[in-house]
Amino acid sequence: MSGVETIGVDLGGTKMLVGALDGTDVRWESREASTGQSEDDLVELLVREVGEARRARPDAVAVGLGIPATIDHDRGVAVSAVNLPLDELPIRDLVSERVGLPVFVDNDANVAALAEYLYGAAQGKPNTVMLTVGTGIGGGLILGGEVYRGATGAGAELGHTVIQADGPPCQGNCPNHGCVEALASGTALGREGLAAAESAPDSALGELLAAGEKVDGKAVTEAAIAGDATAIGVFELIGSRLGVACSSFANIFQPNAIVVGGGVIAAGDLLLEPARREVRQRALKPMNETPVVAATLGNDAGMIGAAALARVELGRGEG
Amino acid sequence: MSGVETIGVDLGGTKMLVGALDGTDVRWESREASTGQSEDDLVELLVREVGEARRARPDAVAVGLGIPATIDHDRGVAVSAVNLPLDELPIRDLVSERVGLPVFVDNDANVAALAEYLYGAAQGKPNTVMLTVGTGIGGGLILGGEVYRGATGAGAELGHTVIQADGPPCQGNCPNHGCVEALASGTALGREGLAAAESAPDSALGELLAAGEKVDGKAVTEAAIAGDATAIGVFELIGSRLGVACSSFANIFQPNAIVVGGGVIAAGDLLLEPARREVRQRALKPMNETPVVAATLGNDAGMIGAAALARVELGRGEG
Repeated sequence: MSGVETIGVDLGGTKMLVGALDGTDVRWESREASTGQSEDDLVELLVREVGEARRARPDAVAVGLGIPATIDHDRGVAVSAVNLPLDELPIRDLVSERVGLPVFVDNDANVAALAEYLYGAAQGKPNTVMLTVGTGIGGGLILGGEVYRGATGAGAELGHTVIQADGPPCQGNCPNHGCVEALASGTALGREGLAAAESAPDSALGELLAAGEKVDGKAVTEAAIAGDATAIGVFELIGSRLGVACSSFANIFQPNAIVVGGGVIAAGDLLLEPARREVRQRALKPMNETPVVAATLGNDAGMIGAAALARVELGRGEG
Repeated sequence: MSGVETIGVDLGGTKMLVGALDGTDVRWESREASTGQSEDDLVELLVREVGEARRARPDAVAVGLGIPATIDHDRGVAVSAVNLPLDELPIRDLVSERVGLPVFVDNDANVAALAEYLYGAAQGKPNTVMLTVGTGIGGGLILGGEVYRGATGAGAELGHTVIQADGPPCQGNCPNHGCVEALASGTALGREGLAAAESAPDSALGELLAAGEKVDGKAVTEAAIAGDATAIGVFELIGSRLGVACSSFANIFQPNAIVVGGGVIAAGDLLLEPARREVRQRALKPMNETPVVAATLGNDAGMIGAAALARVELGRGEG
């Protein structure tokens, strides 16, 4: 599959990352703001950016789009999204007609999982559970070496696995209570960090708060890495909640690995060690030995995975 | 695949059901006690029963075993079991050598899922989540039209999905807390039924208790079917807990259906309606429309699925 160049687009809630890649080899790259656009603006921007990539790299043979949305994979439609103006948009066909290349569409967490499976932390692990812990918690599944998408492509919403039936309301368009996203996302990290700052005024977090600084996920991460016990305690709480969900995923899938990516993984083992402990203590044998590891492709996972999606799907069509 | 006769064995905790089948057409059948045997006794009994089936139906070409145990599918080993004396038993090879036919081994819930997919409630539904609600809660997954087994075949322990992180301890060899098995199994049904009987002495359940009768899952089911409001309330509680797990499975898999079997399904919609309500209220769109349906093959699902396993695996080897 090497020697095939494709265009990968990571369409985030705040930025668009476009690249022409062969595997993880980025031959051309562009970042463009994408927030607050209308649906039409978004398509125009996509067509312009992909067109630019194509002019720069005329050998690119297909386009992959990774989108933080519910996707109808077979129809190539973005059904709905929390952070982008997408509503039943036939984005695959709209972009394909305008740029004149085959286009493939998938959920952003699915393509990140594909990227980690092909080139990152999940290499050689055909059954992998991927969680991207950021503002929310995205999920991707590699099962039997393939991306698992469910009946129409909306599957693997792992962040909306309940860990506490009577827990707090979830966020965004989720009507559920006690989802792992409600309790262990970056949003929850900021919320618990603020609560910890208020109850421990002498901690580094408490001093930040007293100084009028923002106590959010980023601040908690920095304080924890610097050694503040209160901030480390917040990661202990968030990581163990994440670990409850991971113990369920270990029992459900007996995966070769659970890979954790997204912004919150900046804290590394401060997040993962409590999660691993829960898996060891809660999961059945032999699933209690399931490795919980950090993603390795960082912010490029979405772009790399979107380009890989195009390569894999094109190969399937030709195979 | 029709016209191929195989032997299916449903090795339960209390009885062994052996049949020679083509599809769901049972051409020979035998039931034999299997409880309290040693490992050696169990293998002897299996060899004797399968031998008898083979003499009765000499055209049978392979044997499938459905076992309530953690299975290492590739090695054909029963790793461990709660209700049978099995510990790292290479049951596939032991039985195959003695009966002279190819033998295939899988978890009992996996073969029940296969049976419902090929012949029952999940026909034409390539992504199906199957729950068998009895003493415990077993799980089977059909994904992309195939049984999903995980890294070594121990996967799909859906009953050990957490729905309440700080919930009660689970049962058997499970070290977890707040699993759906701990809160919504037949065991939990009996426990909650007894508690309801104690707090409602005027109910049918309460009168049973006062008369010195046993208030267990069976008694609660009978009282609920007869219209006792207290017993119906117990099913409301158990069904809604089951529904919390179903909402997670709907979000995780976007399945074509969730099929519920096992002894507790005798209560039918008294169990399933509260579960469906939770899925509608908790799951994301479009997963909130996931059908939750009763299994249709009843007590024969394990035997039918074990025979089907042998047929499918034999076909794969020849394909």
